[in-house]
Amino acid sequence: MTERKSFGSDNHAGAHEAVLRKMAQANQGDAHAYGDDPWTGRVSRALCDLSGARAAYFVFNGTAANVLGLSLMLRPYEAVICAETAHLNVDECGAAERLLGSKLLTVPTPDGKLTPALVATRLGGRHDEHRAQPRAVCITQVTELGTCYTLPELRSLGEFCRAQDLRLYIDGARLANAVAYLGCTVADIAAEADVLSFGGTKNGAVAAEVVLVMAGDLLDAVPFQRKQLLQLASKMRFLAAQFDGLLENGTWLKNAAQSNAMAQRLAEGLRGIPGVSVRQAVQSNAVFADLDPAVIGPLQRDWGFYVWDDQQHTVRLMTAFDTAPDDIDAFVAAAREASPSRV
Amino acid sequence: MTERKSFGSDNHAGAHEAVLRKMAQANQGDAHAYGDDPWTGRVSRALCDLSGARAAYFVFNGTAANVLGLSLMLRPYEAVICAETAHLNVDECGAAERLLGSKLLTVPTPDGKLTPALVATRLGGRHDEHRAQPRAVCITQVTELGTCYTLPELRSLGEFCRAQDLRLYIDGARLANAVAYLGCTVADIAAEADVLSFGGTKNGAVAAEVVLVMAGDLLDAVPFQRKQLLQLASKMRFLAAQFDGLLENGTWLKNAAQSNAMAQRLAEGLRGIPGVSVRQAVQSNAVFADLDPAVIGPLQRDWGFYVWDDQQHTVRLMTAFDTAPDDIDAFVAAAREASPSRV
Amino acid sequence: MTERKSFGSDNHAGAHEAVLRKMAQANQGDAHAYGDDPWTGRVSRALCDLSGARAAYFVFNGTAANVLGLSLMLRPYEAVICAETAHLNVDECGAAERLLGSKLLTVPTPDGKLTPALVATRLGGRHDEHRAQPRAVCITQVTELGTCYTLPELRSLGEFCRAQDLRLYIDGARLANAVAYLGCTVADIAAEADVLSFGGTKNGAVAAEVVLVMAGDLLDAVPFQRKQLLQLASKMRFLAAQFDGLLENGTWLKNAAQSNAMAQRLAEGLRGIPGVSVRQAVQSNAVFADLDPAVIGPLQRDWGFYVWDDQQHTVRLMTAFDTAPDDIDAFVAAAREASPSRV
Amino acid sequence: MTERKSFGSDNHAGAHEAVLRKMAQANQGDAHAYGDDPWTGRVSRALCDLSGARAAYFVFNGTAANVLGLSLMLRPYEAVICAETAHLNVDECGAAERLLGSKLLTVPTPDGKLTPALVATRLGGRHDEHRAQPRAVCITQVTELGTCYTLPELRSLGEFCRAQDLRLYIDGARLANAVAYLGCTVADIAAEADVLSFGGTKNGAVAAEVVLVMAGDLLDAVPFQRKQLLQLASKMRFLAAQFDGLLENGTWLKNAAQSNAMAQRLAEGLRGIPGVSVRQAVQSNAVFADLDPAVIGPLQRDWGFYVWDDQQHTVRLMTAFDTAPDDIDAFVAAAREASPSRV
Repeated sequence: MTERKSFGSDNHAGAHEAVLRKMAQANQGDAHAYGDDPWTGRVSRALCDLSGARAAYFVFNGTAANVLGLSLMLRPYEAVICAETAHLNVDECGAAERLLGSKLLTVPTPDGKLTPALVATRLGGRHDEHRAQPRAVCITQVTELGTCYTLPELRSLGEFCRAQDLRLYIDGARLANAVAYLGCTVADIAAEADVLSFGGTKNGAVAAEVVLVMAGDLLDAVPFQRKQLLQLASKMRFLAAQFDGLLENGTWLKNAAQSNAMAQRLAEGLRGIPGVSVRQAVQSNAVFADLDPAVIGPLQRDWGFYVWDDQQHTVRLMTAFDTAPDDIDAFVAAAREASPSRV
Repeated sequence: MTERKSFGSDNHAGAHEAVLRKMAQANQGDAHAYGDDPWTGRVSRALCDLSGARAAYFVFNGTAANVLGLSLMLRPYEAVICAETAHLNVDECGAAERLLGSKLLTVPTPDGKLTPALVATRLGGRHDEHRAQPRAVCITQVTELGTCYTLPELRSLGEFCRAQDLRLYIDGARLANAVAYLGCTVADIAAEADVLSFGGTKNGAVAAEVVLVMAGDLLDAVPFQRKQLLQLASKMRFLAAQFDGLLENGTWLKNAAQSNAMAQRLAEGLRGIPGVSVRQAVQSNAVFADLDPAVIGPLQRDWGFYVWDDQQHTVRLMTAFDTAPDDIDAFVAAAREASPSRV
Repeated sequence: MTERKSFGSDNHAGAHEAVLRKMAQANQGDAHAYGDDPWTGRVSRALCDLSGARAAYFVFNGTAANVLGLSLMLRPYEAVICAETAHLNVDECGAAERLLGSKLLTVPTPDGKLTPALVATRLGGRHDEHRAQPRAVCITQVTELGTCYTLPELRSLGEFCRAQDLRLYIDGARLANAVAYLGCTVADIAAEADVLSFGGTKNGAVAAEVVLVMAGDLLDAVPFQRKQLLQLASKMRFLAAQFDGLLENGTWLKNAAQSNAMAQRLAEGLRGIPGVSVRQAVQSNAVFADLDPAVIGPLQRDWGFYVWDDQQHTVRLMTAFDTAPDDIDAFVAAAREASPSRV
Repeated sequence: MTERKSFGSDNHAGAHEAVLRKMAQANQGDAHAYGDDPWTGRVSRALCDLSGARAAYFVFNGTAANVLGLSLMLRPYEAVICAETAHLNVDECGAAERLLGSKLLTVPTPDGKLTPALVATRLGGRHDEHRAQPRAVCITQVTELGTCYTLPELRSLGEFCRAQDLRLYIDGARLANAVAYLGCTVADIAAEADVLSFGGTKNGAVAAEVVLVMAGDLLDAVPFQRKQLLQLASKMRFLAAQFDGLLENGTWLKNAAQSNAMAQRLAEGLRGIPGVSVRQAVQSNAVFADLDPAVIGPLQRDWGFYVWDDQQHTVRLMTAFDTAPDDIDAFVAAAREASPSRV
C-alpha cells in the first residue's frame, strides 16, 4: 500500500469497483466449472460482438495471453518477429522461447512500433533449413513506449503480413488505451489481426485477460493450448465476471480515457519544467521523461516509478484508471520543486 | 448456475464470503505489483508458519502448482513416478510432458495411493542412459479417489524417497480435506515433502493455490520458473487476499471439515439403499458409488455428477464447503426413489 | 571387440563391406553440403521408388527417426498411442516427451503388437480439454519382441487410423527383417503409414536411417524439423552412400534374410534343449527364450546377450547380418552343455 | 561433385583418407554398442589427454555439440549470451530455443568476438524474475568471421565469466584451425571453458564432433542429455574411429594448418587485385572479401562460394584440408581476369 498515487505501473492500482461487484454477484449458487456456466457464455459473446472475434478465451495474465495467442500460429521452427522492446522479448523471462520453442527475431525501433519495412528486414532465410522461419509478427498496441499504431499503420501491417504469409498477433495488454486514444472500435484493431489479446488487469480487473481469435483455422487448438499452458480456470465465472464489470456501461473505455487524459496532463505539466523533456509521443497512459539525475532518486522514493534508461535519465511514468488530476498536479509540483533548473 | 446443489465437483461451488470480503478489503489504494505488497508478505509468512515451509508462492490453479513444483526438481531426462490415476497424468492435457519435458512413470493402484513397494517397481534402469531417470515421486493428498495417506504412510514414503535419492512432491489440491480427515497439521504433511501445493480454489477461493517449498536447495529457481510458467500475478495482493480469507479464523479447516462431513453423510445414506455400493474408503469429500445403470442418467441430469467408470457404473459424487445436510438428504432420497431395487 | 559372435544386439555387429566401400567411393572431390549432392539425390530417389514415399530424409539414428517422424504429425497437446514395450517408450530416455512435448499413451500387449481394439482403449477423452488428444499411433515393424505385423494386420490398423483421424507412424528400425519375413515389399508396408522409418544401422550401416514420408501434407516441415532436431548432416553424401551400399544388389534384403534365418536356426536349436522354451513367435532376428537361471550368467559372460525379464528368466538373443550357422551351433551347444536338465 | 575445388564451405570437402581407413580397421568383429567398446575408450582418453577434459562424448554434428554442451549448464529460464553472428543464433534453425527453452541474448560485434565489456552489456536484469537470467556465454573459436580469440583474450573472458558466475561454452567447430593459427594446444583453449566442442567434420571427418567437459559438476548429466538429444550412436566405434584417424600423426593439426595456409595465400592473392578488399583479419581458413558486384555471379557459378553481405558485395571463401596451392592460384587468376578494374 503506497500513500501517494504510484506512477510505477498501472498494475499498482487496485481493481475497479464494478469488477469486484460483478464477482460478488457471480457468487450465487453452483455453476459448472471450466467455462460451461452462463457468465462465461454471455461475457464471451459480448467480447466477440465488440471485437468481431470468432471466439474469446479468458486467461490469467498478459504473458499467458501472448504465449497462448502465439502458440496457435507456430510450429517450433517458426519464429516471431517483434520489436526489441516488446514485452514478449524483455519482460516475460523467456516464456515464449521455452513454451513455444520459437526464436524471437527482434528489430530495433525508435518508438516501439514495427512497420512493414522493419518486418521485412527479418524475412531473410525463408525456405533455408538452417534458419528459424519467420511466421508470426507480434506487435503491442499500445506499445511498451506508450505509442499507438494508427489505423492506417495497422492496416498496412495487416496487409503486409497477409501478402507475406505471416500471421499477426497483437498484444493488447493496454488495448483499451489505444481504442480510447484512436477513437476507434476494438473491431477496427481486431480486423487486422489473427489473434488479439485484450487486457483486463491494467484496465481495472483483478487478474483477467482475454484472447480473441479472429482466424477460423486457429480455433480448434485453443482449448487444449489454454489448458496445457496452465490457463484454464476452474471457477471460470469469476474471470468472466471481471470483464462483465469492465464492459458494464463502457467502464473499460472510461477507465482508459481517464488514464490517457491523466498522462496528457502529466506530460503538459512536465514540459513546463525547465530541463525536463518528454521523449515519446504521449498516446496512452505512459509518459517517458528525461529528468535531472539529481532529482530522480528523491522523486522515485515517493512516487515509485521506474528508471527506463540509466544513461539518458529517462523515467517511465504510468497513470491508471484511478489516477486523479490532483495526483498529477502534486507530482508535477514536486518535480518542479526538486528541479535544479527551476526559476 | 444450477438450481440444485451440484455433486459434480467442488469446483462447481462459488467462493466463500471471507475470500471475496478480503479481496475487497485489499482493494485500497496502490500497492507494488508482483508480490512486493504487504498482503503478499503477511499471508505468505502465515502459510510458511502453518506448514514449516521456507517459502510460499501463489499461483492461479492446481495444474500450474503441480508443474511449477515439479519444475524445481527435474531436468528434462528425469522422470516422475505417479499413480495412473494422478491428476498430473490424466487431467492436465499433458502439461507436465510439454512444460517439463519429463516422462511420467505411472503405476496402477487400487486406491490412488503409492507405496514404497509400488514406487520401487518403477526404479529400473537408473544410470542407464536409454531410460528416463526416476527422480521425483508425485502423490496427491487427498487422492483423486478420495482416499488419504495416513501420516505413517507419508513418513514411510518420505523415508523411502530420501533413501532412494528421489524428491517428493505432494499435490495438495484438496490438502485441507486431508488435514481435516487426519486431524493433523499442514506441517505434519509438509514435513515429508520437498514441495507441497496447498489448494485454495476447491476450498472456497476464487482462483488461488500456493506452492510451499520446504527444500532449501530448490528455492532459487522458484520466482523464475513461476514467471516463465505464466503464473506471476501482477496484482498479487488479490491472490494473497484469497488465502487471507481462508486463513481467517481457520475457515479453510472448517470448510474442509464441512465437506468431509457431508461426504460421510452421503456415503451413509447411499449405503442404506439396496443395490448401491460405495467403492473406496470415504476419507475426504468424495464418494465413489456404484449405481444401477438405469438411474444414473436421470439423477445426473439433476445433480450434475460424473460417471467415473462406465463399465462398473461407478459415479463420483463430490461435496463442497457449502454443501448442506439438506442437499445430501435430498440427493439420497432421489437416489432411493429412483432405485429399481427399492422395497 | 568380442571374440565370440555377440547375441547382445544387431548393433554389436560391424558394417557391411558394401557400406564402407560406397562411402570410400563417395569420397571423391568436393560436393555441396546438406544433401545438395548427387549421391543424396540418387539414393533418395531409389528409396522413394522402393517404398512409394514422396520424400526420403536421412538421419543419424533410430531414436532421431522416431522423433522426427512423429514431430511432423503432432502439436504438443496431441498424444501418441504405442505399445508399452515400444522403443519410443522405454529406450529413448524420454526423447519424445522432451522434444515433442507429447504424452505417450501406452498399451500393454502380449506380443508387442497393437490392434485396432487395443488402440481404441486409448481413445477416451477426445475433445476433452483436460486430456492429451490422441493423434498418432506408433507401431514398430518388426516389434521389440521380434514379432511381425502381417500385411492384413497392417491394413486393418491403417484403415482404423484413417477412420479415426489418427496418423500412423511405423518405426522401421528393423524394417528389412519384416520385409524378408513377410516376403512382401517395402511399399506394401509403407502404403499404410503416413511416415515410416527404414533402419540402416542394424542392417549393416555405420550410422544411417531414413525417414520416408508418404503423406503429402507433412512434407513442408521435414527439412526444418530435421535441422532443429540435430539431424542435418553436412557431408550428407556419406549417409546416402551407406544406403547406396545396402541397396546394391539387394544387400539390405539379403542381410535381413540371413539374420532371420539364423534366428530360426537358433530357435530350433534351443527348442531341442530340455527345459528351454521360446516365448514369442520367431518372425525376425530375435529369439526370446526362458533359460534355467543357473545357466544365464555363464552363457551371458561369453555371448553378451541381455536378460529381458528377470522374473521369468527370459533372455533376448539377437542375430545380425553377419551371424553364421557356426555361431548358432556353437551357442546352442554351449546352452545344451550348461543346461542342468540335459540328459 | 564439383569439378573445381569449392570455396563454399569446408563441408564441401570429402573425408581425409585416415578417417576412412580407421573406420575400415574398426570394422572387425563384434563390439559392444553405445560406446562400451575399445575404440571409444581409447580415443576418448586420447582426446581428454589432449585437452585436459574430464570426459569426451562423441556426437554427430556441430549443432548437436552446441546444444548438448549448453544443455549441461542451463535451466530453461537461463539465457545464453552470444555474438549476433554466432552459428548458434543464425544457422541452427532455432535449435537452442526449442531444445533448451533458453533465450539467446545476442550482441553485435565487429569481428564475431565477444569481450568482457560486450558480455557485460547483456547482464542487466539479473535477479529480476521478469528477465531471462544470463547464465552461459557461448563463443566460437574460430569465429564465424574467421577470426581467432588470442589466448589472453580467452583468459580474460574466462576470468570474467568465473567472476560473474557465468559458464563458458566454446563452439569449436573449427577448433583445430584456431590451435594451428595460435600455435597453442587444445588444452590452452579448453582451460578457460566449462565445455568445449572439438569439430571433426570440417577437419576431415565424415560426421563426428566431440564434446569435451572440463567442469566436474556438469558430468553426471552428459550421457542422458546426449541420448535424449538424439546423439547416441549405437555403433559408436565408428565415431571414435574418425577421431582416431584425425589424431593419427597429428593429422588434425596438419589439416588445419594446410587450410589456414591456403586462406593466407588466397587473401594475399586477392589483395593484389585492384578493387578487391579483404574485410576481416585472416586467422583461419576463411577469407571475407568485397568483390565487384559484376564479377560475383560468374565466379560463384564456377567456385560455389556464398555471398555473405549483399549490400557490401562481401563473399565468404572457405578453404579446406585438401585445398591445394593450385586451387588458390586458379581462383585468384579467375578473379583477376573477371575484375573490371584490372589493368
